Amino acid sequence: MNVTVVGASGETGRSIIDGLLGSSTDFKVTAIVRPASINKPAVQKIKSRGVSIIALELVNTHEELVKVLTGQDVVVVALEPFDLEPHFALASAAKEAGVKRYIPSAFGSSCPPAGVMMLRELKERVINHIKKIYLPYTVIDVGMWYQIAIPRLPSGKIDYALTYSSDQVAEDGERASSVTDLRDIGKYVARIITDERTLNQYVFAYNEVWTQNQIWDHLEKISGEKIPRTSVSSEEIKATIVDRQTKYNEGAKSYQDLLGFVVPQYFYSEWHREDNLPERAKYLGYLTTKDLYPDFEYIKFETFFDELIKGSGVPVYAKNN
Amino acid sequence: MNVTVVGASGETGRSIIDGLLGSSTDFKVTAIVRPASINKPAVQKIKSRGVSIIALELVNTHEELVKVLTGQDVVVVALEPFDLEPHFALASAAKEAGVKRYIPSAFGSSCPPAGVMMLRELKERVINHIKKIYLPYTVIDVGMWYQIAIPRLPSGKIDYALTYSSDQVAEDGERASSVTDLRDIGKYVARIITDERTLNQYVFAYNEVWTQNQIWDHLEKISGEKIPRTSVSSEEIKATIVDRQTKYNEGAKSYQDLLGFVVPQYFYSEWHREDNLPERAKYLGYLTTKDLYPDFEYIKFETFFDELIKGSGVPVYAKNN
Repeated sequence: MNVTVVGASGETGRSIIDGLLGSSTDFKVTAIVRPASINKPAVQKIKSRGVSIIALELVNTHEELVKVLTGQDVVVVALEPFDLEPHFALASAAKEAGVKRYIPSAFGSSCPPAGVMMLRELKERVINHIKKIYLPYTVIDVGMWYQIAIPRLPSGKIDYALTYSSDQVAEDGERASSVTDLRDIGKYVARIITDERTLNQYVFAYNEVWTQNQIWDHLEKISGEKIPRTSVSSEEIKATIVDRQTKYNEGAKSYQDLLGFVVPQYFYSEWHREDNLPERAKYLGYLTTKDLYPDFEYIKFETFFDELIKGSGVPVYAKNN
Repeated sequence: MNVTVVGASGETGRSIIDGLLGSSTDFKVTAIVRPASINKPAVQKIKSRGVSIIALELVNTHEELVKVLTGQDVVVVALEPFDLEPHFALASAAKEAGVKRYIPSAFGSSCPPAGVMMLRELKERVINHIKKIYLPYTVIDVGMWYQIAIPRLPSGKIDYALTYSSDQVAEDGERASSVTDLRDIGKYVARIITDERTLNQYVFAYNEVWTQNQIWDHLEKISGEKIPRTSVSSEEIKATIVDRQTKYNEGAKSYQDLLGFVVPQYFYSEWHREDNLPERAKYLGYLTTKDLYPDFEYIKFETFFDELIKGSGVPVYAKNN
C-alpha cells in the first residue's frame, strides 16, 4: 500500500511515520517536503529509515503534484491549517490523481464544526472542499495529547518534559476529556487507513477519559507533591478568548497572537464544554477506535505519568526534534 | 408521541401533516403558526383535522417557545431557510425544552455542504448551530420532487398541473437524479422520526432514480407528443448562476431575484453535477430509505405521469392550496 505523508516532520507527522513503518502492513511510505527543508536533520532521519522523500512546494504546482500522487493509495496530511491554500491544492491534486483515500489535517480534539474553535472551522473548510469534489476521505481526530494535558510540579521536577503545561482547572476540575499519547496516533492511523469501514467516515481515536481532578490527584500521588488547582470559570475563559481574538482582528497578527486565542479555545472546548468526550464525538458522527479496535494496545496514561517522573519523558515541539 | 410542526401550511409541511395524521403511529400533532396566519384557510383546515394550533412568532419569544416545546418528542421544521433567525431561535428553544429529536429544515436534494448551492449553505449554518448545542437531530433530505421534474407538453395538455416545469436537459440528457413524490415525504418523515437508527443521522429519502432522457422518453410515449430537448451545458448554467448572483449581490434583492440564482443552482447540482444520486448521498454521510425501509410503499413515478395525463395532477405552490 502506497502512502504519502505531507507534514512528516511535525509532531503528528513523526508519529504517523513511526506508526506506518512499525506496522505489520507493508506500507511504502513517501514524504513530500518543502524544497527548503530537504537537508534538515528531521528529513534526513526519515529518509534513512526508508521513506522516499519528494521535495515539492504544494501551491501552484498542480501538475507535478498530480504526478507525484498518482499511484498513491492514501495521502495523509499533517500540516497546520492556518494557511488553507496547500490543503485545497493537495485535495484537488489527490482527486485528479485518483487517490483512494485522503486523510485531511484534522488530528485534533472532537469539537462541533462551527462556533467553538477557529481551528476546527478552518479544518471544516477543507473537509467541505473534499466533499464538494467527492474525494474519498477519512477524518481522524485524536483527542488531547497526554503530552500537553499535565500540570507542572511545584518542584519543577517534570519541567524538562513539558513544553506546554496545563496548570489551570476548568471550574471545579470535575470535567472530563479524552486523552491520547502522541506516540499512539500513528499506530491508529496505520490501522484506520487499512480499514474499509472507515472510508468516508470520521474516526475518533483516543486512549482514555480523565477529569482534571483525576490528573492532579494521580500526579500528586506519584510525585508526593501538592499541585495548586487554580480554577478558571467559563466566563473568564470566554472573556480571554474574546479579548485576544479582538486584538488579533485589530492587527496583532503574529503566530503568538494567533495562539493567544487558539490555545484558550482548545481549553474552553476540551474542558469547559467537554466537547472532547467519546459520546460527544459519536453525536458528531464519529466512529470510535474503542468500537472499531477493542484489541488496540495503547500506552496507558499512568505509564506516561511514570515516564515523566522517572525522567524519560520527551518534550513535544522541542527544537532538536 | 408528541410532534410539533413549524411551517405546516407550506408544500412540505402539508405533506408532513398528512404523513403524521395518516400514520399507524399515534402522533399527537401540534402546528406553530404565525399569529397573522391563524385565520387562513390552510390553518383552519389542519385544525379541523385534529391538529392543535399554536399562534406564536418565532423570534424574540424564547420563553414562550420553550414552554410550547416542553413535552414535545419531536419538532419538525419546514420553513424556508432564507431568514435564519427563526431557525436558530427554534433550535435553541428546543434544546432548552428537552426535545428528543429536532428535524431542521432540510427537505432538499443531496448536495455537498458548501460551494454548490447557497440554500444548502444556509441549511448548514442551522445544522452547525444544532451540533454546537448538542440538540438531538435528524437531517432529512428528499431528492427532487416529481412535481417539478417534468417538462411541458407542446400541446399544453399538462400545463394545468405544472407550476414549475423543467424544460431543459443538462448536457445530453443522460444525467440522473433521485426523484420523490411530494406526497410521500410526510410518510417518510413519520417513519424516520420513530426510528432510533436515524437519531443524530442524515437520511436521504427518495423514490426512484431517473435520467432526464428517461423522463422525456416516458412522457413522449404516454402522451404521443414529441418534446423538445434543449440542452444546457455546464458552462452555460454556471455563467447564468454567476450573472444572477452578481445582480443579486449588487442590489436586485427581490424574492424573484433570489430564485433567479437559487433555481439554476438546483438544476446545476441535481442534473449537471449529479449530486442528488443515492451513492453521492451515501458518500456525504446519509443513510437511505431504501436501506432502512425496503418495504416502503411509495408512489411510482409512472403513476404520477399517468395522473398528469389523466388530468388528476395537482399543481404545487398554487394559491388556493
